[in-house]
Amino acid sequence: MLSGASTAVETQQSTLSRYLDGEFWQFKDDIREDIRRCELFHQTSFDLTLDQTRDLTMERVYYVMQTPLMRQHFRDQVTEKQRGFIAKSLGLTEVICSADMTTGVKLGVICGLYGGAVINLGNPEQKDKWYLPVSDLEFTGMFAMTERGHGSNVRGILTEAQYDPSTEEFIINTPCVDAQKMYIGNCMKGNHASVFAQLTVNGETQGPHCFIVPIRDRHGVMHPGVTAIDMRHKEGLHGVDNGILIFDNVRIPRENLLSRFGSVSADGVYSSPIQNKSHRFNAMLAALTPTRLALTVQAMAGMKLGLIIAVRYSHSRRQFGPKDKDEVKIIEHQTQYLRLMPHLAAALALTFTTRFAAAMMDDVLCGGESLDNNRSLQALMAGLKAYSTWQNIHCLQECRECTGGMGFMMENRIPGLKCDSDVFVTFEGDNMVMLQVKKNNCLFFDAWNSCLHHITSLALAHIHRVTLEQFALAVEQCPVEEDRTLLTKFCLLHGTNLVYQERGWYLEHHYLTPRTSRLIRNQLLELCRLVKDEALKVVSDFKVPPFCIKAPIAGVANPRAQWAFYSTPDPAPSASSLPQHHGRTSKL
Amino acid sequence: MLSGASTAVETQQSTLSRYLDGEFWQFKDDIREDIRRCELFHQTSFDLTLDQTRDLTMERVYYVMQTPLMRQHFRDQVTEKQRGFIAKSLGLTEVICSADMTTGVKLGVICGLYGGAVINLGNPEQKDKWYLPVSDLEFTGMFAMTERGHGSNVRGILTEAQYDPSTEEFIINTPCVDAQKMYIGNCMKGNHASVFAQLTVNGETQGPHCFIVPIRDRHGVMHPGVTAIDMRHKEGLHGVDNGILIFDNVRIPRENLLSRFGSVSADGVYSSPIQNKSHRFNAMLAALTPTRLALTVQAMAGMKLGLIIAVRYSHSRRQFGPKDKDEVKIIEHQTQYLRLMPHLAAALALTFTTRFAAAMMDDVLCGGESLDNNRSLQALMAGLKAYSTWQNIHCLQECRECTGGMGFMMENRIPGLKCDSDVFVTFEGDNMVMLQVKKNNCLFFDAWNSCLHHITSLALAHIHRVTLEQFALAVEQCPVEEDRTLLTKFCLLHGTNLVYQERGWYLEHHYLTPRTSRLIRNQLLELCRLVKDEALKVVSDFKVPPFCIKAPIAGVANPRAQWAFYSTPDPAPSASSLPQHHGRTSKL
Repeated sequence: MLSGASTAVETQQSTLSRYLDGEFWQFKDDIREDIRRCELFHQTSFDLTLDQTRDLTMERVYYVMQTPLMRQHFRDQVTEKQRGFIAKSLGLTEVICSADMTTGVKLGVICGLYGGAVINLGNPEQKDKWYLPVSDLEFTGMFAMTERGHGSNVRGILTEAQYDPSTEEFIINTPCVDAQKMYIGNCMKGNHASVFAQLTVNGETQGPHCFIVPIRDRHGVMHPGVTAIDMRHKEGLHGVDNGILIFDNVRIPRENLLSRFGSVSADGVYSSPIQNKSHRFNAMLAALTPTRLALTVQAMAGMKLGLIIAVRYSHSRRQFGPKDKDEVKIIEHQTQYLRLMPHLAAALALTFTTRFAAAMMDDVLCGGESLDNNRSLQALMAGLKAYSTWQNIHCLQECRECTGGMGFMMENRIPGLKCDSDVFVTFEGDNMVMLQVKKNNCLFFDAWNSCLHHITSLALAHIHRVTLEQFALAVEQCPVEEDRTLLTKFCLLHGTNLVYQERGWYLEHHYLTPRTSRLIRNQLLELCRLVKDEALKVVSDFKVPPFCIKAPIAGVANPRAQWAFYSTPDPAPSASSLPQHHGRTSKL
Repeated sequence: MLSGASTAVETQQSTLSRYLDGEFWQFKDDIREDIRRCELFHQTSFDLTLDQTRDLTMERVYYVMQTPLMRQHFRDQVTEKQRGFIAKSLGLTEVICSADMTTGVKLGVICGLYGGAVINLGNPEQKDKWYLPVSDLEFTGMFAMTERGHGSNVRGILTEAQYDPSTEEFIINTPCVDAQKMYIGNCMKGNHASVFAQLTVNGETQGPHCFIVPIRDRHGVMHPGVTAIDMRHKEGLHGVDNGILIFDNVRIPRENLLSRFGSVSADGVYSSPIQNKSHRFNAMLAALTPTRLALTVQAMAGMKLGLIIAVRYSHSRRQFGPKDKDEVKIIEHQTQYLRLMPHLAAALALTFTTRFAAAMMDDVLCGGESLDNNRSLQALMAGLKAYSTWQNIHCLQECRECTGGMGFMMENRIPGLKCDSDVFVTFEGDNMVMLQVKKNNCLFFDAWNSCLHHITSLALAHIHRVTLEQFALAVEQCPVEEDRTLLTKFCLLHGTNLVYQERGWYLEHHYLTPRTSRLIRNQLLELCRLVKDEALKVVSDFKVPPFCIKAPIAGVANPRAQWAFYSTPDPAPSASSLPQHHGRTSKL
């Protein structure tokens, strides 16, 4: 553990940083401090072997799980839902992912996915038996839904669960290659899996259900009939051990069926609170929705880190300029601020939109409402997941290009962030599939397929609107005038950019005239120019501690790569951001 | 070396593949066969350590350099330019990069950059002394232009070269941190560097010139005064050892100044065929332009590989479909073919456009014309570099997303291709800077800066037009009717997509009506649907041998990752590509 002179997280306590952190800012600060005190998070891992990276990640996960804050959070998860639980979970996710994306994802697998399955699909005894011990590090779990043959189309999974009344056991089986459970995180280290399989009782199929299947004991000895294949090297998230699970008639006790949506009596009678199989499966999937919001926060954490690094470097690095004068900071180049500022505005919009979605989710869960009846919330989660993860990809790519060769070096973090978060756009629901929530895509396949491009465009347009609405609302509610003024500019920029990006469609449908459209381009350029210096304050108020940023080009010294160091730029606004320019922003 | 039953490259000898390979198809086939016979190219390298990867890359480079074809090519490079030399160099680049991007880039550093500097800036004796021995593996070289302080703005480099008449030597010096030579490829293994430095003779500065500076001898012993710092881990191109060079008053003989554009007599008199310093430097830079075209080909090689993998997998993998029927191939999903087909069309367009640019370059060089007087050719090279490298990034990202979790696995190649080629957009001239060739950006910085977005958009629009023109011309000249028919569809698709992408601008400037713009969207969808099955033939006719493709999801078995294997799809057209659909394409 670290100690000594620097005993507190070096965080800024500005009013804006507190507003951006939201209601649970103290909770987030406490996690930041917990992580800072752990040496494991001060290391980089890009030069370790695959096995070393996996071990380091697991150590980090264990450290986080043992902090008092996290242990309390475990207990809150198992007991009745309290208002703020989702928001706090997301705060935790954001801070951990800022420190290390892989640790955040692995923790998400154990607590969000495996834990989420037990919590949301199990009865109270099952929660105590299969999840509480995780908080004591007695065992960890994995989430086995995806199959080789069915990634996006989970309704069609092929793994079988046959009830044997003679022994009161389920027989879990992988009948064919397409039924192999694939991409399973924590597959090479975890002990139990929440496995989705088609339940058959007395020869009658009851659709997919979730079972707890032992994979290996604490000493790593495999459970009879279970095979785990290591998938090894991926583009990123190297610390997450993804693998394939194959079940050869694995026998598990009757009590291992998570029974909230269906259970089997000792003598083999199936019962469920939902009679219709399709509705039942929808309800099960809906119960797992909250974890989807975590992905949005993970993507947002990646964006914020990338922007901190790119904005700071752009304010330090100089290149080109007027003849016979000093070269100018690269942030002064029109193409540079035009590339970075809209992403910064989007990161702010996402901050407020995820907070809104979390509050909505908290309300629904505390009200005991069923998530599958709330289609608009489900569509919001899915749309937000697609928008934020794509936004993250585009943002980090711009950050990489805007930091040039320095941004290509692993020491400067951006490549690792890109590789780690690239998979977000296709896992836990492919983005293209996410954009089709609101839709029954099986009955009229051809008709549905022929308007797929329309559907996905519309879904994105909807989520764009939500982000702008929530941003505007957050500006309105911001208590400090100075912060409100700053956020207003970024909000206007976000809205202008959304219209600019989609101006083709608006023009096609006569919502914009050609002249107005050209003015929007000018307004976008002017707004980007206007906020480029204030961007330094905003990225500082993201409150990511230096030991999480790590990048030397963002002003965090690293003895291993002294050549990459650029000192942190002075956040005082330069002449070009003085008020006299404000009046030049054209209003629509 | 491999031998036995499979003694020939498994290439398709269709008329289209020959047309795509162009005039030097036999030359390219011979290189394919040379590489196939070398075991080194059959290995993957993503699980090696950094040092192992670098060693493997160097061994591959040495293997290629020792092939009779390459040795002949060396001799052609040193002697008077022959028509076809550029085209053959690019064919070689494409084939090597298809086998391993890192090897292609490292070979490019040694032959294209270091060799290019000696060949284009040196006199005949200097070529014999400093470059010919490279073909005998006596030593290798590096290219040291970029400095910490001046990446894009090379005119401002700070490294000094002072002439000392008393010893008839130049003193090469790094006066400050910003003058360090940075990102230098082959820095940790190469023996000589072509170093750009500001020449001072008798107290008078003569602007940047290029010098051959010894770095280390064959035993790795550093030359006195030279320091090389290893930059180690990057996002990709792990086999290329990039580093930093620092010179502490390093003394080199007078003859080490490459003298085509300037030389110094023993007693210290400077002379040059070009009096104006700025013109002189432009001429030097222009002489190095041919290597820029190699980057376009490298990017194109990445795109083709990604498309081969994504298109084949999309024709094998099934997901969703009409109720109670088999699931459909994912290529049938509208969003899937809409994402992939425009990139395939762009890859074809780039094939023909680079061929055109190479022929133009060949003509100019054979005619003894100076490249710096040919601004349109320089603009074409720069624009093509920017367009193709961005296109490559977008294409590979779509390929990754369209192959889902499988595309995230290193075994399936796409992640490695993405990481390796990501740096292309910012190295050897940042793309944003590339798009400003035609322009003097120093005299009126503010005016220039305020229209930077316009300039870059216009430059891209120009290069878009050139790619479409060259594609159309290639269709016209295609000798086989069946191939012409197929290419016509892709050409129409390429043009439609270019207009669709930029429809906002066309609408703003009244070149399109809203109604026409909507029709273009329909035409784009219909063209993509129309070619989706023929895409299998096209990617097959890219003629990339299976040992280069490597990806199991593209039908190349790999005992290490049996779980990733999908058999190669049947290239026979399915019902949905039969002629009855052709008439449904709306024409503008």
